[in-house]
Amino acid sequence: VNTTSVAASPLIEILERVHREFASETSGTVATYIPELGQADPQTFGIAVATVDGEVFAVGDAGHAFTIQSISKPLVYGMALEERGKDAVLARVGVEPSGNPFNSVSVDPRTSRPFNPMVNAGAIVTTALLANSDPNDRMERILDTFGRFAGRPVSMDEAVLASERSTGDRNRALAWLMRSFGMLANDVEEVVDDYFGQCSVLVTCRDLALIGATLANDGLNPKTGQRAIDPHHVTNVLSVMSTCGMYDNAGEWLYNVGLPAKSGVAGGVLAVLPGQLGIGVFSPPLDEQGNSVRGVKVCERLSHELQLHLLGRSAGVESVVRRSLRGDEIGSNRIRTVSQEDALAGRRRAIGLHELQGDLFFATAEKVHRAVVADLDGVDFVVIDFTHVGSYDEPALATLDGLAERLTNSGRTVVAVCEDEGGIGSKLTQTAMSFCDEDAALEWCEDQLLGAAAIVVETRGAHAELERFDLLDGLGDAELSALELEMDVRTVEAGTVVIREGEEAHELFFLLSGRISVLLPLDPNVGGRSRRLATLGSGIAFGEMAMLDEATRSADVVCDERSVIASLSLDALKRLDVSYPAIGARIRTNLSRLLARRLRSANAQIRALAR
Amino acid sequence: VNTTSVAASPLIEILERVHREFASETSGTVATYIPELGQADPQTFGIAVATVDGEVFAVGDAGHAFTIQSISKPLVYGMALEERGKDAVLARVGVEPSGNPFNSVSVDPRTSRPFNPMVNAGAIVTTALLANSDPNDRMERILDTFGRFAGRPVSMDEAVLASERSTGDRNRALAWLMRSFGMLANDVEEVVDDYFGQCSVLVTCRDLALIGATLANDGLNPKTGQRAIDPHHVTNVLSVMSTCGMYDNAGEWLYNVGLPAKSGVAGGVLAVLPGQLGIGVFSPPLDEQGNSVRGVKVCERLSHELQLHLLGRSAGVESVVRRSLRGDEIGSNRIRTVSQEDALAGRRRAIGLHELQGDLFFATAEKVHRAVVADLDGVDFVVIDFTHVGSYDEPALATLDGLAERLTNSGRTVVAVCEDEGGIGSKLTQTAMSFCDEDAALEWCEDQLLGAAAIVVETRGAHAELERFDLLDGLGDAELSALELEMDVRTVEAGTVVIREGEEAHELFFLLSGRISVLLPLDPNVGGRSRRLATLGSGIAFGEMAMLDEATRSADVVCDERSVIASLSLDALKRLDVSYPAIGARIRTNLSRLLARRLRSANAQIRALAR
Repeated sequence: VNTTSVAASPLIEILERVHREFASETSGTVATYIPELGQADPQTFGIAVATVDGEVFAVGDAGHAFTIQSISKPLVYGMALEERGKDAVLARVGVEPSGNPFNSVSVDPRTSRPFNPMVNAGAIVTTALLANSDPNDRMERILDTFGRFAGRPVSMDEAVLASERSTGDRNRALAWLMRSFGMLANDVEEVVDDYFGQCSVLVTCRDLALIGATLANDGLNPKTGQRAIDPHHVTNVLSVMSTCGMYDNAGEWLYNVGLPAKSGVAGGVLAVLPGQLGIGVFSPPLDEQGNSVRGVKVCERLSHELQLHLLGRSAGVESVVRRSLRGDEIGSNRIRTVSQEDALAGRRRAIGLHELQGDLFFATAEKVHRAVVADLDGVDFVVIDFTHVGSYDEPALATLDGLAERLTNSGRTVVAVCEDEGGIGSKLTQTAMSFCDEDAALEWCEDQLLGAAAIVVETRGAHAELERFDLLDGLGDAELSALELEMDVRTVEAGTVVIREGEEAHELFFLLSGRISVLLPLDPNVGGRSRRLATLGSGIAFGEMAMLDEATRSADVVCDERSVIASLSLDALKRLDVSYPAIGARIRTNLSRLLARRLRSANAQIRALAR
Repeated sequence: VNTTSVAASPLIEILERVHREFASETSGTVATYIPELGQADPQTFGIAVATVDGEVFAVGDAGHAFTIQSISKPLVYGMALEERGKDAVLARVGVEPSGNPFNSVSVDPRTSRPFNPMVNAGAIVTTALLANSDPNDRMERILDTFGRFAGRPVSMDEAVLASERSTGDRNRALAWLMRSFGMLANDVEEVVDDYFGQCSVLVTCRDLALIGATLANDGLNPKTGQRAIDPHHVTNVLSVMSTCGMYDNAGEWLYNVGLPAKSGVAGGVLAVLPGQLGIGVFSPPLDEQGNSVRGVKVCERLSHELQLHLLGRSAGVESVVRRSLRGDEIGSNRIRTVSQEDALAGRRRAIGLHELQGDLFFATAEKVHRAVVADLDGVDFVVIDFTHVGSYDEPALATLDGLAERLTNSGRTVVAVCEDEGGIGSKLTQTAMSFCDEDAALEWCEDQLLGAAAIVVETRGAHAELERFDLLDGLGDAELSALELEMDVRTVEAGTVVIREGEEAHELFFLLSGRISVLLPLDPNVGGRSRRLATLGSGIAFGEMAMLDEATRSADVVCDERSVIASLSLDALKRLDVSYPAIGARIRTNLSRLLARRLRSANAQIRALAR
């Protein structure tokens, strides 16, 4: 079995093929308006894709550094939104596509604002909006933010910066024009200098892919886990990238490629598919609109081939309710007496369980609402299992809390199952109870049902008569008394380990009062935690498998509370066989019946769970 | 328990609140450029939302009919794309936002094309593109298509149409201008008349919501199931709605609301959240740009409150792999002999099972690829369960087929589980086997493992010795011979029902050769189908629960192939107790051990499944 060939990602193969194909595309011209940019090698060509879970796939010259140029604009726009708030920023810079070239001297005639933050005039105003008056500090913050987006420290290309400074007269003119319109109150030279600075930051197309993945990941760098931008502003940044990012053919870009994007004159292109991935391409030759020729082609190709268009076939809402079950189809791991099981049998359907999956947003939450409401016939307990839910938003939370409130008002009890502390299940305020696993939730509901049926769930502290044990069913008084004489009765405190996994099995136990749990120790490397297999109350025997094969114990048994336990050794049972031969035979038959009963119930659960 | 109060949708409450709030918004002016429109009651106000699974929520004047006006433009644009193809349409109409009013006399100076199909000039050219030369037929097709979008037959408002005709000079001028630029070769008066016709179609805001839901649902009306537009063109239609739909503030609309949308001068607004829902609003007073004042406010509010922004926090890709298990954590329902179980015990880990959930597109398929590749250590069989997958696209299919091919080339066997005939599992060409349930897939893999271990799975046709039966383990030759004398051996054909659910249980069976299945009959209303609980090969006893409680049979047992079965009545077993008392005791102990073994295995499965 050859593992290496399997491990190669399909994406790397696709990127390699696309890189090979477009390497022969030689149209376009390297930008020369800044002399330093004119020295770029037109052959240099790299492509990278980064996913929202932090995988990076790169081919070609993915490590080649170039200046970020206009791709700095959406990032600084995000900083301005964070520092000044949306309204203050919108007062100075619009969000309308201009239909004009990026360095056009034009403003929106209705408001005198520059059309948008992606044209130079708007970008310079945006840089000026960064709140701090100390220009050194502003440039430091820009570098720091870009570094958090890229997941590594970044720096400026001093040669390009010098070249920008010495040839940036048009941008100086734009800055003065903006100042004449009252859109910029700062020192023009300082602002322009920082604008040149942000454009001169060195990045690779791998960096661009990670910047894109950070935007796709609601502003959190998926590789470092560091926050680069507040999630609320990510939507705004992606919006202006969608309509204004690719200079004067924004409509065509959204139509053909369908990804928020931004290009820079050094040859970089950044594209983002929200929730999924970021794309970075570098190739210096530009088309007439100033976009990298190969960069545009690679984005088009990847969008078509991988169907990345933002408005393409969308993830649906169908599968949010993974399955809905009633309590008679799935029960808890609580082992109960036959009489309790009988009492529950007719009542279990009053438990309605809904297991959710995927992400919860309004449309999926609304669908959950409908699914729960459609299945309320005879339901008194609604258990909603959020264990397999991914992300959620406020509208989903409000919708489900509203549902819980309605259910509660209608006399029902709502129970949430949620593993995570911070998960949606723990944020719901209108649920009666919350458990960290489905089993515990189901047990609690069953206990409530038994309580309602006036069946004693626990006779805590009360001495359970031996005749109550299903395992001893059918034995006469004389036989029970003989058994009792052979038993060793003791009271144990909560936490006592009665049976330890791996020990030899020499006896079986009868829980006279209290409560014990059967625990399967998990890998001690995971911190010595254990998994509950079953919980038993009084009237239940345990460790009885010892009668079948005197093997070792397969799990721990620990007291949940002070308990009274009678033990019967296998030797004693053998001794009794002489004077009371019926006892052993009877117990073995009872054990088989109990096992058969539990097996049937287990098989029913498996069928329900495997659905 | 009060069901009605619970059933009320959270969405209806939200819509009612929003409707109440904006009912007091009285700014804006009813359009008067067509006299007939000026008669609209400015108080009329309706809101509707339709989901991609066909639920419609409506408040206010949701049944009030009005003319669709410019909301016809994206629908006719979709028709033109279908009839003429994308390239032919793009040659005549651009996709750039113009920044100009909807009735502007302007074309893209670079191409002489109207800027986009949402301004009147572009819409008239689009209508002209509808292939057929017979104008009556063209109008019929428009009505038919609109009807499929709305899910009901629609018709024109003849009074508005007459009014449009008598006052439509500017549109006639635009049409002649387009003809002068060579963008329109048809009879101008006929084209303009159909353009007036499409604008005069009567709809309600409920219709608009369903039109939106149809676009959100890849072109399939979610209520009627009828196709209104090819899914490939839906992306194009939504793209022009995103950048050009709300007249000259397209950038602001995408920034603030973030939904592809289109407004009409009669007061309608249509908005779409792809994959989720459509919104329809009707309120005649318009703002300066010609958009319904309340329509815009309702869309803004719903987008913010329900977080519907297209570029907002996105559904993630995290949860696509619901769980990954190895064969030692979950087995098939095949009941095997102890020796087969022992042989499998060490080999089960060679089966790797991955259960997927949700929708498969490139990013989720790529994640599946990584999850499978990351867990190949010691794996020879890769089972991928697609049962809970919703939709999928071509890139996902290609990625997973590529994965299957690599796995196959590395010497592994890939097995797909897929319930649906048309599901992705059945479309994969590089898988070795495909099963309609996980159980069957696991059984097949286990059989392969047993085959590799040279353990005989089936001794088809061979007579299995009684001593091979685990249930008879430990009996001596004399006891086995005595048992054999009491047995009734017969050969039965495939399809024979050996045990029928509900019959009284008087005997137990030993499968000497062949193969039988335990089937649970399902609701006869579901067509008499049944669910397989277990399959047994030779050497396995069945119907043995009869020894515990002489109750009725709980499932059917049917022969899968010609089988040789020995039966032993409970009466015969009792008779044997006299001469061979050890037989009964031994069989009972064996039965308990088998039950305990199966119960342990069942509990392990439950724990794995409930994870």
